Amino acid sequence: MSRYNITIKKRIEKRKMSKPIETVAWHKDAVVLIDQSCLPKQLLYIRCKSAKQVWQAIRTLKVRGAPAIGAAAALGMVLGINDKKYANFSVFKKRVNTLFDYFASARPTAVNLVWALKRMRKLVFRHKNKNIDEIKQLMLDEALLIIDEDKINCRKMANVGQCLIKDDDRILTYCNTGILATVDYGTALGVIYRARELKKRIKVYSCETRPLLQGARLTCWELSRSKIDVTLICDNMAGYLMQQKKIDKVFIGADRIARNGDVANKIGSYTLAVLARFHNIPFYVVAPFSTFDLSLKNGKAIPIEQRNPKEVSELFYKKPTVCAGVNIYNPAFDIVPANLITAIVSESALLRPPYEKSIKRFYLP
Amino acid sequence: MSRYNITIKKRIEKRKMSKPIETVAWHKDAVVLIDQSCLPKQLLYIRCKSAKQVWQAIRTLKVRGAPAIGAAAALGMVLGINDKKYANFSVFKKRVNTLFDYFASARPTAVNLVWALKRMRKLVFRHKNKNIDEIKQLMLDEALLIIDEDKINCRKMANVGQCLIKDDDRILTYCNTGILATVDYGTALGVIYRARELKKRIKVYSCETRPLLQGARLTCWELSRSKIDVTLICDNMAGYLMQQKKIDKVFIGADRIARNGDVANKIGSYTLAVLARFHNIPFYVVAPFSTFDLSLKNGKAIPIEQRNPKEVSELFYKKPTVCAGVNIYNPAFDIVPANLITAIVSESALLRPPYEKSIKRFYLP
Repeated sequence: MSRYNITIKKRIEKRKMSKPIETVAWHKDAVVLIDQSCLPKQLLYIRCKSAKQVWQAIRTLKVRGAPAIGAAAALGMVLGINDKKYANFSVFKKRVNTLFDYFASARPTAVNLVWALKRMRKLVFRHKNKNIDEIKQLMLDEALLIIDEDKINCRKMANVGQCLIKDDDRILTYCNTGILATVDYGTALGVIYRARELKKRIKVYSCETRPLLQGARLTCWELSRSKIDVTLICDNMAGYLMQQKKIDKVFIGADRIARNGDVANKIGSYTLAVLARFHNIPFYVVAPFSTFDLSLKNGKAIPIEQRNPKEVSELFYKKPTVCAGVNIYNPAFDIVPANLITAIVSESALLRPPYEKSIKRFYLP
Repeated sequence: MSRYNITIKKRIEKRKMSKPIETVAWHKDAVVLIDQSCLPKQLLYIRCKSAKQVWQAIRTLKVRGAPAIGAAAALGMVLGINDKKYANFSVFKKRVNTLFDYFASARPTAVNLVWALKRMRKLVFRHKNKNIDEIKQLMLDEALLIIDEDKINCRKMANVGQCLIKDDDRILTYCNTGILATVDYGTALGVIYRARELKKRIKVYSCETRPLLQGARLTCWELSRSKIDVTLICDNMAGYLMQQKKIDKVFIGADRIARNGDVANKIGSYTLAVLARFHNIPFYVVAPFSTFDLSLKNGKAIPIEQRNPKEVSELFYKKPTVCAGVNIYNPAFDIVPANLITAIVSESALLRPPYEKSIKRFYLP
């Protein structure tokens, strides 16, 4: 058993004692996930024992949030290679490639998913001369490392980002970017958690985030668990709050960031960015390196996932709000152009415009 | 029986034969309303036989839309004075004043409600020398006149506004401003209906309009009944549509318009106006004279109704989306400042900025 694995197993044991919630974890040869579709009604864990179960959990948003689905997919790949015997490396490699494509197909927009899969595949290719059981063990180690790194990166981002928050700030946030969107702590909500730990007085407004209500269901649940003052609004109320000068800053997460700083994030993020610009309110994006897609020049090439129209027409309770025969449009993400973003908080630094330069400085060789 | 009443009774009879839906009507000493809270699932009519029932229908949004609640309140006042005997005019006048305050308290933002009540009260005071039964009859005539005028005004606005629509326009609309928001035909949707009657090819995007989903439930239902191409979106998708250049014009209604052209309308209207300005998309407001509150210099003094937080937290189905203990903010309206409005379509004219001047020209003595 490798060094990483021992360390991480110990950490898992420790976590089991001290932490009440754990978004993505490896436990007794299974991927254990919080079923986020049941929140806030129930805190329910699901045990995925096959790659297919993990794929479905990602696809149906039982686990969601860019960093969390990256971690879940890496562990899913481990499940996928574990359930078969392989005659030689070539067969094994084929299986790894199949699993890569399979998990990459679960959700198209968040690049963290593909980032984690690429990292796993690279590891396999790097160790092609080892025996397969050894490679399997290295893959588990790597997936657990991704999980641990995510936690560390969230803390780093939180430390970088908290400097942007002052006492008595009223912060607008969107979708869920907290413990549930990562392995622990969060991206944009991590910054808020850190500010709160440092005893800054803050007030948070959470947009409900239609259609799947991650802001209402998940963010409000997380923040009120942590005794942070949170007020729920419908998405269409954000402009009115800004007009009344009730918002000092906007903090959101990201699903993919292009080389020029264009950000793909939950549908509605673009509207908030336009509103923030109109009202001269700083607009911050918080995301780890795994969210940057340096292969893309700008946001135009980011694929936008179109989801089931029923998410819109049946609210959250499978009861139609609209008569039959009406067209429904349900893009899950939109693109915030770099010129509307005040700064990007990453684990390495606070990136300021022009992002071509600042991203290059920290992330390109 | 007065001339008006005979004409209108005939019209009601005729309507019963030919028209499938009727938002507000007087029938056999009762106010008959569509229960809009049941749409689109059921087209259900309710018979209100007392002022209290009408008040509750307005309060609980069984009937909603600025012109429609004005008409309903006028008829409600008739019900209110009919159920008692009066010793003299002074007692009668007291009752009229009580009913005025009672109905005015049902909903604070839409001024059409108070406009209709004022008109009814003025009529009573003007005829104080007549006997009370005669005044009662005049009040019914006046309420029915309000109803008929509303229909005529909607057609006039539609004719004025349709000039703004070209072939192949893609129009964004908000909340419900159609047949269901008026006595018939509508304000902003009336313009769309008229453009369609004139065979203009149009495509409509309807925002669902959280929290009470009037866009999804009512507008999509109305438009698809009329075979108009309609696509439902969540409110937070409007910006993304505009960014993709999929919207040519925005048409909304109004609940109150101040002397300077500031418009109170359904919460979220302000956000759409900011988005439209950012994308250089014309933003039109359609409203009859009864929506103008010429006593107000600007929108700052317009009261914004705060509604039950459960409208936000329980979606539409009385199932909570958020855990207990979270604050909820639920303003029902916001203010679109005059400088974001391209033009206001009224029954008299197309009003252009500066609105102080154009409103004065048409509406002030």
